[in-house]
Amino acid sequence: MLRVGYPATVPAEFLSVFPEDVELIALPDGLAEETTLDVWVPDPYTPKALKVWPHLRGVKLVLSMMAGTEWIRPTVGPDVLICSGRGAHSPSTAEWTLTAILTMLRHVPFYVGVQKDGVWKRRFEMPARYKEITGDARSLYPPVLQEELTGKRVLLVGHGSIGQQIERLLAPFDVVLTRVARTARANPKVHAVSELDALLPDAEIVILILPLTPESHHLMGARQMGLMRQGALLVNAARGAVVDTDALVDALRSGKIRAAVDVTDPEPLPEGHPLWSCPNVFISPHVAGSTPEFSRRAMQVAAGELRRYMRGERLQNQV
Amino acid sequence: MLRVGYPATVPAEFLSVFPEDVELIALPDGLAEETTLDVWVPDPYTPKALKVWPHLRGVKLVLSMMAGTEWIRPTVGPDVLICSGRGAHSPSTAEWTLTAILTMLRHVPFYVGVQKDGVWKRRFEMPARYKEITGDARSLYPPVLQEELTGKRVLLVGHGSIGQQIERLLAPFDVVLTRVARTARANPKVHAVSELDALLPDAEIVILILPLTPESHHLMGARQMGLMRQGALLVNAARGAVVDTDALVDALRSGKIRAAVDVTDPEPLPEGHPLWSCPNVFISPHVAGSTPEFSRRAMQVAAGELRRYMRGERLQNQV
Repeated sequence: MLRVGYPATVPAEFLSVFPEDVELIALPDGLAEETTLDVWVPDPYTPKALKVWPHLRGVKLVLSMMAGTEWIRPTVGPDVLICSGRGAHSPSTAEWTLTAILTMLRHVPFYVGVQKDGVWKRRFEMPARYKEITGDARSLYPPVLQEELTGKRVLLVGHGSIGQQIERLLAPFDVVLTRVARTARANPKVHAVSELDALLPDAEIVILILPLTPESHHLMGARQMGLMRQGALLVNAARGAVVDTDALVDALRSGKIRAAVDVTDPEPLPEGHPLWSCPNVFISPHVAGSTPEFSRRAMQVAAGELRRYMRGERLQNQV
Repeated sequence: MLRVGYPATVPAEFLSVFPEDVELIALPDGLAEETTLDVWVPDPYTPKALKVWPHLRGVKLVLSMMAGTEWIRPTVGPDVLICSGRGAHSPSTAEWTLTAILTMLRHVPFYVGVQKDGVWKRRFEMPARYKEITGDARSLYPPVLQEELTGKRVLLVGHGSIGQQIERLLAPFDVVLTRVARTARANPKVHAVSELDALLPDAEIVILILPLTPESHHLMGARQMGLMRQGALLVNAARGAVVDTDALVDALRSGKIRAAVDVTDPEPLPEGHPLWSCPNVFISPHVAGSTPEFSRRAMQVAAGELRRYMRGERLQNQV
């Protein structure tokens, strides 16, 4: 019987989607004993998964819960099949992306701050407090109370499962959307990433949601940020290393752009790292995909792939 | 020539939509001299408008920039025509509503707090800090990193111009939407407000976006909040007095519900008011509608109504 290891933190109710003729083995966070598996579903929190791996034996197939799998191949070596969790993350990560955009445009951190102060004051009524909370010492942004997403020009870099879901969420805001992916496509029109530099100057919001590959490493560097509009918003929902962190720190400090990031490079972002104290940035600690519904969907995706593997069918999300 | 007074803070570029054969008079915030007008466009910030009114003479028509006009009739008396700014607010206020929902479900105030701390920690890694930031001392909400809007059951109370725009923004989240308005309607199905009590227990999110009238005053009282699901989210984008504030404070303190409000009763919310220190609430100081685009749209709405008035046509937004 096929032995399938999964993170013990996945609620039992989400496991019923797996075939009945496999042996499901819960892998605790601090797994210490040698464990033989055929199939490994790693914890979506990479540091935990990396601690479990050295204790596993016999793994032939890795079913990732995450869309991003760039860390798995160097860990498991060349002979193991790897499938991504494509689709499982899409609703949650797309929601984070919209949340991050609205958090910045509607100045949520400022209003959370004045709520803590317990005073009914708006941006123009307390410019000093606004500067203190956002770090925007030069008041780069118009002294309006809120900004609108409606009608904004958005550059969506990455058009996989999550990117397409972001597009759906943005549609009723009547944004002017331009799509970029590794290769150009038609219907809908998607530009090749080689056109990125030409497209950056027009965008008011740039969303990164593409896989980390040697080609996308530091895709957004100092030159690209220099091409962005004054005050434009850069949103990274992909991987930290798609952005050159040093260049991001410079672009934020100089007041050139704003940013919202769920991923950083290095990650975790160490205490005292200069990004923490940059102005006009919202940082969340890689939580975009992490909702209860994500685990349920990820088990559905993994179970579907496992069935195909057992029947000798073509795998859908093989990397 | 018709004399039309408008708030001096409205950017000049938005005034070009007015007919050429009227005299436009900028009214400064601290207007002190007697000013004769035919048409008054009051400042959307009510306290400012109330200070301007005693200095005005001859006003026959008030063109509100705001959708809510309940304060105008008692101010100007029975003989003045009043038109609302229906439509001008819809995109911005609908955006605030979505922002407020995502702020609560995706725990933005918590992540803004840990970003200020400069530590890469998630909810389950710092439960004490989570309790400190949210005031949720009993950890009422599941120890997940983020919650999803996707698929939630939403009760939308109010289905005017803003309510309909909120519905459009919610659509791609595949929410299960139930609509309520003063009177029942079909296509789409809208329940009468008399059915509210029966509908409340099923909703995970309740959105208030209906006019303040004697009937809607304290529509959400202690009994209604008692009917809501444990941990459900109440969003008030309407007027403060649609909610019984004392009951809201009790419902928040007891951990029964969560809330996000842009309006309060009293308003401004005084320093030291118990609502400021309630757990699990996001408060913004009546800024939902206030974006640069709002002023532009409001001038378009007012200019359209003014043209109809000058031609003796039926006014579209007469209250």
